[in-house]
Amino acid sequence: MVTDPQRACFEAGIKFGSLYHQFAGTPVSPDSARSLERAMAEAIENQPYCESVTVRIDDDAVVEAIDHENGYAELTGRLMDVEMRIEYGGVAVRTRMEMEDGYPLMKLVGVDDDDGSETA
Amino acid sequence: MVTDPQRACFEAGIKFGSLYHQFAGTPVSPDSARSLERAMAEAIENQPYCESVTVRIDDDAVVEAIDHENGYAELTGRLMDVEMRIEYGGVAVRTRMEMEDGYPLMKLVGVDDDDGSETA
Amino acid sequence: MVTDPQRACFEAGIKFGSLYHQFAGTPVSPDSARSLERAMAEAIENQPYCESVTVRIDDDAVVEAIDHENGYAELTGRLMDVEMRIEYGGVAVRTRMEMEDGYPLMKLVGVDDDDGSETA
Amino acid sequence: MVTDPQRACFEAGIKFGSLYHQFAGTPVSPDSARSLERAMAEAIENQPYCESVTVRIDDDAVVEAIDHENGYAELTGRLMDVEMRIEYGGVAVRTRMEMEDGYPLMKLVGVDDDDGSETA
Repeated sequence: MVTDPQRACFEAGIKFGSLYHQFAGTPVSPDSARSLERAMAEAIENQPYCESVTVRIDDDAVVEAIDHENGYAELTGRLMDVEMRIEYGGVAVRTRMEMEDGYPLMKLVGVDDDDGSETA
Repeated sequence: MVTDPQRACFEAGIKFGSLYHQFAGTPVSPDSARSLERAMAEAIENQPYCESVTVRIDDDAVVEAIDHENGYAELTGRLMDVEMRIEYGGVAVRTRMEMEDGYPLMKLVGVDDDDGSETA
Repeated sequence: MVTDPQRACFEAGIKFGSLYHQFAGTPVSPDSARSLERAMAEAIENQPYCESVTVRIDDDAVVEAIDHENGYAELTGRLMDVEMRIEYGGVAVRTRMEMEDGYPLMKLVGVDDDDGSETA
Repeated sequence: MVTDPQRACFEAGIKFGSLYHQFAGTPVSPDSARSLERAMAEAIENQPYCESVTVRIDDDAVVEAIDHENGYAELTGRLMDVEMRIEYGGVAVRTRMEMEDGYPLMKLVGVDDDDGSETA
């Protein structure tokens, strides 16, 4: 059978892929970054087993990515940090998207059983 | 040559298609509808010649569209009304997405020259 | 530490969420379904650890979902079946999206260790 | 009233915005570029008044955009050329997305009345 920690990790991945591909490409500027951060978090928190989502768009990175006179960039993983907490069957999974070697990576940070044991 | 009113209408269409296909499919519930409305409007207002965008998500329609125990729906044109004002070369274009015969339609409401003449 | 099976399940979830939210909302008809199936599969197979993706769009469901004179529907999980095989660290994960109780669900079908043990 | 050429230009813009924001962010490599080109064209050709869509993904640009060991890029306007022909009320509109000053622009190339007069 599939274990609860495995299922919890699968659910965590679904949320990450959903958030990224739903919102990648959204026009963003420092003026609109706050509303986008909040909408992304609240939208994905609607999904099952998703306890919390935090999205931080890096205004400096956005300004650097604005490459034309229009004054906005298209959202990519390079412009934001994302943290999520997923819970399934008493297992809590912590995930994070962050830059590594210059590329955004979706990482499985920790898988915690409800007996409090910390497996990562 | 392409006239300013024609170009203004082309720009108005770009904004509408962008808003719809960027955000269609976003998980939405009455609790997350307000932040999504604001993010959609502010994101598209980043685009050139886009003076104003208003998005209203119909909470009753969302609740009706929630078709599983997960408690959320995926955003579609049936769940929202959108109004936009685009300005290009002194021409103001007003557009609206609304239900007609049971289907969401993107409509060109009016094209106004800056001499104040109302052409629609 | 996070185990290889857990990481493999996380990667599998990422692919599923990516496929769904990248392509949900795409205009589709029986005439365009074959090219969309192939593009979806080949696009997601680009992602790391993704061994194979199969997408089958149900033409009958598409025809039923075409609800206006325009002659097309917007892609949703109700209109397709998806199967994926992800491999990470010698662990193979099989996933499937299928209808259950009238709703599309992303399922973890099996997690196989490379010693051939079948855990689901 | 809104003129047929204005409405035709509005419809042309909708198709462009739809194509761009539906498919921007799709994982792409030279191996998957052909199926994506075809799916994008056939998907948007489903939309009303859309006579023809041609999408050309630049494999060299894709290879240049592949910036990590994963071996794929995310689709953006810099990686493709798009041409569309929209017809509404006897007016044909030709549009193109191409690079200008290093940025992808959606352009209104021509608006032709059915009396054969070429207005651009």
